[in-house]
Amino acid sequence: MVRFKWNGEEMEMTIDEFKIWIKKIERKSLHKESIERAKNHIKNLTMPYWALGDILDIGVKLSGIQRVFPPKIKTKKVFIFAGDHGITQEGVSCFPKEVTKQMVANFMAETAAISVLSKHEGADVFVVDAGVDGELAYHEKKFIQSKINFGTKNFLNENAMSKEEAFKSLFLGFSLVEKHHFSTDVFSVGEMGIGNTTTSTAMASALMNESVNEMTGTGTGISEEQRQHKVKVIEESLKNREILNEKNPLVVLEKVGGFEIGAIAGMILGSAYYNKAVIVDGFISSVGALLASKINPDVLNYMFIAHESVEPGHKKVVKELTGKTLFNFNMRLGEGSGTPFAMNILEASCRILSEMATFESASVSQKNE
Amino acid sequence: MVRFKWNGEEMEMTIDEFKIWIKKIERKSLHKESIERAKNHIKNLTMPYWALGDILDIGVKLSGIQRVFPPKIKTKKVFIFAGDHGITQEGVSCFPKEVTKQMVANFMAETAAISVLSKHEGADVFVVDAGVDGELAYHEKKFIQSKINFGTKNFLNENAMSKEEAFKSLFLGFSLVEKHHFSTDVFSVGEMGIGNTTTSTAMASALMNESVNEMTGTGTGISEEQRQHKVKVIEESLKNREILNEKNPLVVLEKVGGFEIGAIAGMILGSAYYNKAVIVDGFISSVGALLASKINPDVLNYMFIAHESVEPGHKKVVKELTGKTLFNFNMRLGEGSGTPFAMNILEASCRILSEMATFESASVSQKNE
Repeated sequence: MVRFKWNGEEMEMTIDEFKIWIKKIERKSLHKESIERAKNHIKNLTMPYWALGDILDIGVKLSGIQRVFPPKIKTKKVFIFAGDHGITQEGVSCFPKEVTKQMVANFMAETAAISVLSKHEGADVFVVDAGVDGELAYHEKKFIQSKINFGTKNFLNENAMSKEEAFKSLFLGFSLVEKHHFSTDVFSVGEMGIGNTTTSTAMASALMNESVNEMTGTGTGISEEQRQHKVKVIEESLKNREILNEKNPLVVLEKVGGFEIGAIAGMILGSAYYNKAVIVDGFISSVGALLASKINPDVLNYMFIAHESVEPGHKKVVKELTGKTLFNFNMRLGEGSGTPFAMNILEASCRILSEMATFESASVSQKNE
Repeated sequence: MVRFKWNGEEMEMTIDEFKIWIKKIERKSLHKESIERAKNHIKNLTMPYWALGDILDIGVKLSGIQRVFPPKIKTKKVFIFAGDHGITQEGVSCFPKEVTKQMVANFMAETAAISVLSKHEGADVFVVDAGVDGELAYHEKKFIQSKINFGTKNFLNENAMSKEEAFKSLFLGFSLVEKHHFSTDVFSVGEMGIGNTTTSTAMASALMNESVNEMTGTGTGISEEQRQHKVKVIEESLKNREILNEKNPLVVLEKVGGFEIGAIAGMILGSAYYNKAVIVDGFISSVGALLASKINPDVLNYMFIAHESVEPGHKKVVKELTGKTLFNFNMRLGEGSGTPFAMNILEASCRILSEMATFESASVSQKNE
């Protein structure tokens, strides 16, 4: 039984019930008819064929996701999932663990990068305590208290979380979509958690059976010596946890995961379930997406990846997901900081499908054949 | 003497006076002090060092351009310069020449791609008749009647325009910045002109001494056979006009140029003169930028290039300019259709510099040393 307090309310659900929910997303393909309508409409727009390139591809995908033509993007919500990581005890990050909590305050004050960029693009931001190590007492509507535990355990020595906690973290993200999907056209997933590039690298290396060394970058800015230490810690952890090439994504989450990463995977599963586009961004949230895609590959149909991170593992993870990012601004911040730009682009592509003239409506001559 | 009607008003200026104007831009470097202030401020923002990558580089450049810290982008104006091309007589485009005029109507109705995207990003659009072959009778404020001539001459057989017309086209773009700079934080240049990829390829091949074949793409969608015909027409024209590796940019404009391309170059020169950021986009406006940079290389300091076009010549031109584009959406439309996205990004980078908290203001711990 998954039983926990969520947003002040007692929730409960058996693990089997939750599994049935997640299974429902299976074989959920995009809506072919809306895709065809979009493609036919685009042919008639006043421009050379497909001359807006990716912007049109996005519009077509959104038609399939929303199962309607033309699609629309107006309401945009960013969820920042925060959690702490026991693995920070091994000195893998150059920022102290307290920064997770301090950054939550920064999100609440609306002065972090993701806050400024979301405001700029007209997106609402929600901050979710998925597992911060410390008491957080905010009472604004934009703060969601759903702490699963006070940080994960140090996975060098023991499992990061219990099986029940792993389910709870997935369920957390899923439930948020359930609550918000009526008032949201596009979701995006951000994260905050000192140490979570280490967690993500461990998860991705296990899920993809990749060399830890090739997957490991400099995170928030560690030296090469520190990076090698990080590689060693992850390699040893994967060995200790016995999950090299582990096929069961839930076991990977349990053994070397993070609460915020599980919640991100849950939000992605929920977005697919409720026919919503979801934007993933950077290395950590992409690992959440990887976890979701290993539970159900059809989530990829609903996913857009915003920026390509400079973290070396990100390219590899992107290849396992949709295969492409929308842009590359040489960012490496996390927080979901690339997602507001992506939301702007998705909204623009909907407006192109709705508001541009056709050759006929504008009396513009067509191409000579 | 350059004398012409501009926006209903008689304008006149000697060519020497105009040259003095243009010369004033010379050796106009960015404002070092504002750049230093921006860099120092960024160090203290609540994120790992330079973690927003290009977004921060843009903010630094804008500080130098606007000679102030923090810079701001609020008012955004897109100018679409329209002109016709005599070279269309040689069958180089797959759209009939009338489309230039028809697309102007589409811009005026605000239903073209650039109209929809500009509205989405909060930019005002102005449509400039630089040399459309036909009478255009619009009386809205957003239409600027500055026709230099009814299209250029067919440059296979004679010079595209007179020396005076070449100056007029440069002056046109320059004057628009002079008129609008008080109420504009960022300019962008778009274009419409059936046949203008041919004109641009001819200009760029001459200015860069590049192989016409390597510079020539499929424009709005011609076949390989048609492309080879286009290459032949351009090669023959460059030979007939005797401007292979011509060093004087004004001679290139006169012999194989276009009115809208000259005006784009003028707007870029004007933007640098008035300390304004200017956004260039795609192949044709980049050739306008190339022309401006050959008149005065310092314009590059004020320039951002929005999207990388799929036209093969564009990569080469970009390399001669700032060396990089902001994004690549596989677009090949023209109209300046990538510039609204770029304006959004520039505005976002200003907001990051103004609105993000510092480590101190947000009480966030700094990196361990």
